[in-house]
Amino acid sequence: MSASAPLSVEVTRGAIVESRHLVHVVAVDGGGRIIRQWGDGEQAVFPRSAIKMIQALPLIETGAADAYGLTSMELALACASHSGEPKHVSTVTAWLERIGLDHTALECGSHWPTNEEATRGMAARGETPCALHNNCSGKHTSMLTHARHLKEDPKGYIGIGHGVQRRVAAAIGDLTGVNMAGIPVGIDGCAIPTFALPLRAFAHGLARMASGSGLSADRAEAAKRLLAAMGTHPDMVAGTGRFDTTFMAAIKGRITTKGGAEGVWAAALPDHGIGIALKSTDGTGRAGEIALIEALKTLDLLRPEEVDAIAPLARPTLRNRNGMAVGEIRPGAPAF
Amino acid sequence: MSASAPLSVEVTRGAIVESRHLVHVVAVDGGGRIIRQWGDGEQAVFPRSAIKMIQALPLIETGAADAYGLTSMELALACASHSGEPKHVSTVTAWLERIGLDHTALECGSHWPTNEEATRGMAARGETPCALHNNCSGKHTSMLTHARHLKEDPKGYIGIGHGVQRRVAAAIGDLTGVNMAGIPVGIDGCAIPTFALPLRAFAHGLARMASGSGLSADRAEAAKRLLAAMGTHPDMVAGTGRFDTTFMAAIKGRITTKGGAEGVWAAALPDHGIGIALKSTDGTGRAGEIALIEALKTLDLLRPEEVDAIAPLARPTLRNRNGMAVGEIRPGAPAF
Repeated sequence: MSASAPLSVEVTRGAIVESRHLVHVVAVDGGGRIIRQWGDGEQAVFPRSAIKMIQALPLIETGAADAYGLTSMELALACASHSGEPKHVSTVTAWLERIGLDHTALECGSHWPTNEEATRGMAARGETPCALHNNCSGKHTSMLTHARHLKEDPKGYIGIGHGVQRRVAAAIGDLTGVNMAGIPVGIDGCAIPTFALPLRAFAHGLARMASGSGLSADRAEAAKRLLAAMGTHPDMVAGTGRFDTTFMAAIKGRITTKGGAEGVWAAALPDHGIGIALKSTDGTGRAGEIALIEALKTLDLLRPEEVDAIAPLARPTLRNRNGMAVGEIRPGAPAF
Repeated sequence: MSASAPLSVEVTRGAIVESRHLVHVVAVDGGGRIIRQWGDGEQAVFPRSAIKMIQALPLIETGAADAYGLTSMELALACASHSGEPKHVSTVTAWLERIGLDHTALECGSHWPTNEEATRGMAARGETPCALHNNCSGKHTSMLTHARHLKEDPKGYIGIGHGVQRRVAAAIGDLTGVNMAGIPVGIDGCAIPTFALPLRAFAHGLARMASGSGLSADRAEAAKRLLAAMGTHPDMVAGTGRFDTTFMAAIKGRITTKGGAEGVWAAALPDHGIGIALKSTDGTGRAGEIALIEALKTLDLLRPEEVDAIAPLARPTLRNRNGMAVGEIRPGAPAF
């Protein structure tokens, strides 16, 4: 399918459009066929945290997940950018204990929880954050888990040459069909490598996660298990009030979505065998959320009752500090 | 001068540009002559909090500031979007007391301080926020001050028909040369009206604040006093670590800058009699900051030692949670 204009997203205030965004979106099937693209599907983007479900494949494929008896809640956290709420932190803490480690083994750095209530609760109790509160601590614990299972030195697991990152890169390369040698590499917010992928290739990887197309039976099963875990525990994937949690809860996990920094989003649709990847050109998350829903609706991938359930997310009302409605975020007029 | 392309701003990670922004910028002199514009100077934008120095003119012109013996620190707070740090809150509290009111008179709504340390400190002390912590509480106290001075009912001072907002709108109309009847009106985050102005007209208003051009002696003096107050107390205008505070402190207040929501920025340059207004198309503040400095540098409005002093702001390094440099924000290649 030929290229078209990116999706546009508008932020209004009163009668005028105050800000505008453009979002490149591509939807691909398991065979790699582009179903629809808006904008440039070939541009290289850092998938950031939106690729966590693919990064988690080695956790299952090495046998580590079963050896340590991981729950589906823990599998969801392996693919999460969590908000540092108490349930996230306690689950990661217990999991780390089971693999014989603690927060000092995590090399992701620390920050206060992104959930403001969680941060204020910690401050009220006189606590300070550690790496457990980092939104990526589930993914890092997942990485430590396969390092332990394979009896590798966990120290330095964030390095591009460590077995952990080599397995993760191999899974990304296999799923997306990208030759990982020589593509641009950046350092992610949590210190692991992030590989710039053509948006179409990223979407293809997601479609293969969703469909199992061209994957070994074991890998297809691992992908299915991870997507199911995320859909079953949307509260573990992001956090209270955040898009992925709210969206997946509203549609009962039938579609798996995962956002990343700088306006990247991923969606895997097992029922349709489709993957969708998108990137807002300016890096804003608010544009990515609206564009994802708009793409799903345009491609008729949501059921009528799901369209109703996610309506507040599709066109959110903006309110001021007094709760007055002052504008909205909405799909923009098509750009040609 | 004819139109040209907007300024571009790039966010890099490793070797690639991860996100891009476009910023419309216009620089105008006191007579309304466009010195330079990037992008569309005629588009109507909500100036949001970037126009607070103009909104504060009635505080002085009604005689209220002198009647209540306001300090230059309080005048700076009248023009501020403060971070809710203890010094901001205590200064507003004492000012409100002097006019015989307290926080219950503020109609701006409340939110936790934007300064995270201030928020955690409050949580640790078991405190909750009130309207004093709203970033606009200084402006609202300023509005209440002229209402009190003129013996108006302070109740409902945020309404477009109240004397307070009529004086504010008249000042904006006079300074910018815009006929305020019939232009688009929105509701700002703090519940007062915000009027959509052509970017060029907004810049002209700022140039007249800076130059006094075409203003009565009293108004020119009031404008001078407000700009001087902001330049003298940059810590009151925004807060620890924020752009306006850091920038004005670095250049010793010689240029007054003020950011607003959705990527709007204002600069008034008394030494040159110039005003600059800008709007990032996507509403991101990070783009506005870089574009403002790039415009000032391109127009040769910064002294060599000032260019050095603000270098960290002109091209900030992005660091991950471990403090590793992962990218930067920088002026982009010119778009034609």
